Amino acid sequence: MRSTNIIKTLLASGLALAAIHSARPASAFDLDTGNAALEVVVQTAAPVILSTVSPSDASLILRVTAVTTTAWFDAIAPYGPTTVGVYSRLGRRPPGESVTNRNKNIALLYASYRTLNSLIPKEADVWTDMLLSVGLDPNDTSTDITTAVGIGNVAGAAVVSAREHDGMNQLGDEGGCLYNCQPYADYLGYSPVNTAYVVKDASRWQPNITTTGNGIFLVQQFVTPQWSVTTPFSYADPSIFFSPPPFMSRWKGNGFGKGVGFADYKEQADQVLQVSAALTDAQKMTAEFFNDKIRSLGASTAFAAATHGLTLDEFVQLDFLVNLAAFDGGIATWQEKLRYDAVRPFTAIRVLYGDTPVQAWGGPGKGTVTDLPASQWKSYLNVADHPEYPSGSACFCAAHAEASRRFLGSDNLGWVVSIPQGSSLVEPGITPAQDITLSFATWTQFEEICGMSRNWGGVHFLASISSGRDLCSPIGDLAYEFVKAHIAGTTP
Amino acid sequence: MRSTNIIKTLLASGLALAAIHSARPASAFDLDTGNAALEVVVQTAAPVILSTVSPSDASLILRVTAVTTTAWFDAIAPYGPTTVGVYSRLGRRPPGESVTNRNKNIALLYASYRTLNSLIPKEADVWTDMLLSVGLDPNDTSTDITTAVGIGNVAGAAVVSAREHDGMNQLGDEGGCLYNCQPYADYLGYSPVNTAYVVKDASRWQPNITTTGNGIFLVQQFVTPQWSVTTPFSYADPSIFFSPPPFMSRWKGNGFGKGVGFADYKEQADQVLQVSAALTDAQKMTAEFFNDKIRSLGASTAFAAATHGLTLDEFVQLDFLVNLAAFDGGIATWQEKLRYDAVRPFTAIRVLYGDTPVQAWGGPGKGTVTDLPASQWKSYLNVADHPEYPSGSACFCAAHAEASRRFLGSDNLGWVVSIPQGSSLVEPGITPAQDITLSFATWTQFEEICGMSRNWGGVHFLASISSGRDLCSPIGDLAYEFVKAHIAGTTP
Repeated sequence: MRSTNIIKTLLASGLALAAIHSARPASAFDLDTGNAALEVVVQTAAPVILSTVSPSDASLILRVTAVTTTAWFDAIAPYGPTTVGVYSRLGRRPPGESVTNRNKNIALLYASYRTLNSLIPKEADVWTDMLLSVGLDPNDTSTDITTAVGIGNVAGAAVVSAREHDGMNQLGDEGGCLYNCQPYADYLGYSPVNTAYVVKDASRWQPNITTTGNGIFLVQQFVTPQWSVTTPFSYADPSIFFSPPPFMSRWKGNGFGKGVGFADYKEQADQVLQVSAALTDAQKMTAEFFNDKIRSLGASTAFAAATHGLTLDEFVQLDFLVNLAAFDGGIATWQEKLRYDAVRPFTAIRVLYGDTPVQAWGGPGKGTVTDLPASQWKSYLNVADHPEYPSGSACFCAAHAEASRRFLGSDNLGWVVSIPQGSSLVEPGITPAQDITLSFATWTQFEEICGMSRNWGGVHFLASISSGRDLCSPIGDLAYEFVKAHIAGTTP
Repeated sequence: MRSTNIIKTLLASGLALAAIHSARPASAFDLDTGNAALEVVVQTAAPVILSTVSPSDASLILRVTAVTTTAWFDAIAPYGPTTVGVYSRLGRRPPGESVTNRNKNIALLYASYRTLNSLIPKEADVWTDMLLSVGLDPNDTSTDITTAVGIGNVAGAAVVSAREHDGMNQLGDEGGCLYNCQPYADYLGYSPVNTAYVVKDASRWQPNITTTGNGIFLVQQFVTPQWSVTTPFSYADPSIFFSPPPFMSRWKGNGFGKGVGFADYKEQADQVLQVSAALTDAQKMTAEFFNDKIRSLGASTAFAAATHGLTLDEFVQLDFLVNLAAFDGGIATWQEKLRYDAVRPFTAIRVLYGDTPVQAWGGPGKGTVTDLPASQWKSYLNVADHPEYPSGSACFCAAHAEASRRFLGSDNLGWVVSIPQGSSLVEPGITPAQDITLSFATWTQFEEICGMSRNWGGVHFLASISSGRDLCSPIGDLAYEFVKAHIAGTTP
């Protein structure tokens, strides 16, 4: 039963895990009593992920967290009574080595060091400092698996070896690339039917034009379509998963005439416009909260660990579980995104209404306006770099919630997040007008609100949210069974 | 005849003007004897431009520098014997007010403050600190044109008023945009015939796929095609300028068959491959040098000001002149880029050779390789966000050199730039293998090497370089005549 100051600080502030960075100096960390996964690795990696991997996509962030938490799980497996690693079987250490957290912490720190150097090699100095900050030697490359250092190094190397060519193209060398290869580049050859300029098929995805405001404009490309063919942890073949077609996204008319499906197509686009026109501060801030996966998904696990008083082992198991659940959910979701290549709301609204004035949110600080040319409508959240259906976030939250329910044995969550006045990233200084709180009494509420927030943010139609949840809730169960079997040591 | 320490530091180091930032604290600035344009405004603005406007395009950087230097010119005009402003006529101040630089410096600082707040409003705090650092009050909004403060404010406001809607779409409100408008957005509706995925016409521009390496890939969009319809300073109508068609870029075959123009098309693409295969360290570093417009064009003016011992008035006149020459050259160049929409080397090489191995530079640190699939070839410099022909850099350097020759009355330059070992941004730590120097004996050499460096960098065919120079050298003359007339006060 542990509840560290750092977690209390986090919960009280309602801020991202990144806030840990300044909450407690790493030098104060105690290898015998601390939780190095949360207090050292997350503390070090969260700011790096936020600044280096982000601004990015959940696909890329989830892969970093899934691979790193796998390394934690495998590194401490030899210290449990029955646990076996996912990518290594390093025997079992005598119980006397687990009287304190020291050996487990050392093993997971070295395993993290190996995986983070593989995942984000540009930040090698940060990973070196991470070990130095707790008095460990980054140059210790021991592979003696009777020692914590050796276990960490071997377990980490095994995870790296298994995942570097898992299909995500982390090294850029998939698809026959020899020169000028880029990490995570698409090697499936996805090409959108619509361009940012011309919509040929109003049912299909249109890449959006983006800018940082500096005068350079760029057009989206589907991020990591190869996630759909990446090796899952908890099931063999994603083709067993299927979402029903996004019927309401089908522009069934003859060309752009108003055909059979027109009423449905218009109805779901109008629903997004109606939500946009009536956006509340709570909806805006909820949309922003769930748009930040570390602040929502990541912090929810830290909160649950504190309220349930999880041990180091239990925290590592739960954090690995929820990350692999979301990651494996993402594989199935990307398969369906690729299958349907579905239109985003911004395109549907433009196609339907062109320059006709509509009533909607008019952009940062503008509130609801009635004379907005539909072609100038913008979703409250920036739209992510992939087709619309099904919703990735609805999937991740559903898989995360189901896995958490199963592991913790309860649907209770009881999380209250404080949102200070003016803390919006979209409308800084303006929204929310007053301090507000977001409350999640249960995991079920958490996943439901998470899903809806994508509609409030204007980036998803309703059907995409229920389909994302239906697709990935069962994957949360598979992930739980997978981790449970590894904890029990009953996997082959 | 002034030669400040700051300029000597700059010249000795061969570094960008941004280096000024740390070379001398602004608090040491003397309003009576100093050059506030170079020592305060450039010192403050260069790092902001490098970090905020960049990574950007020359079109956007040149507009910031052209508008700011216009404000300088107009602000000190009342203190000259005959000079009149471009956008304001504020009478003439008695000679006694120009005995020292104090009034001219104050006027140009307030004028800079007004224009920089219009151009880069996000950095308002930096512009406020800029005035405070030399003891001036940012809240002094005097419009009394018998005072330096009032002259600066009125001259700056006139420049802002004239240029905010000059066609570049600085405020984002051109083309009828009411909501969610973005600064510098295209309102001409340019749409490429080729996509990043499919080449329909091998003569035409293909947007490239870009990434910062974080797993997000984005497709280029033509940056500010509306530069072509932006109001020039030194001529009325860009349609008087014309570049011959890029004949060798024409894929004249039947579809993708090898037709009439094939030999030419192949010849110019092969030339780029041959250069790529034989790249020297000097060529690589020259390409990087001229790719940084502040470090090359900007610093050359600071160097010339030092060697010619220019007064404050002369420096302001020259810096305004060279910036408007390049800016006005850019308008004509963008008109031609839009007219021909010409193919970049990377596309031509891919179309010609597909996955066939070629000999070329193999990417950072790889040197020349012989088994490079042509489809994986990459130019040494990142390719800019616009069609190939004619070369913008060749134009800017030619206009800049011609204007400098005319103003200084000599082709002599005598600039030697030190390039430290390993200082490459493309191959850091590796290139150049030893310290080298780049030497520019004359402005003619400067513009010739500048042009060629675009071919060495792999982003331009040869025809584009000669055409860029031919197009813009006469614009350097027009710019000189324009500034000369304003100095003499002979404009209507």
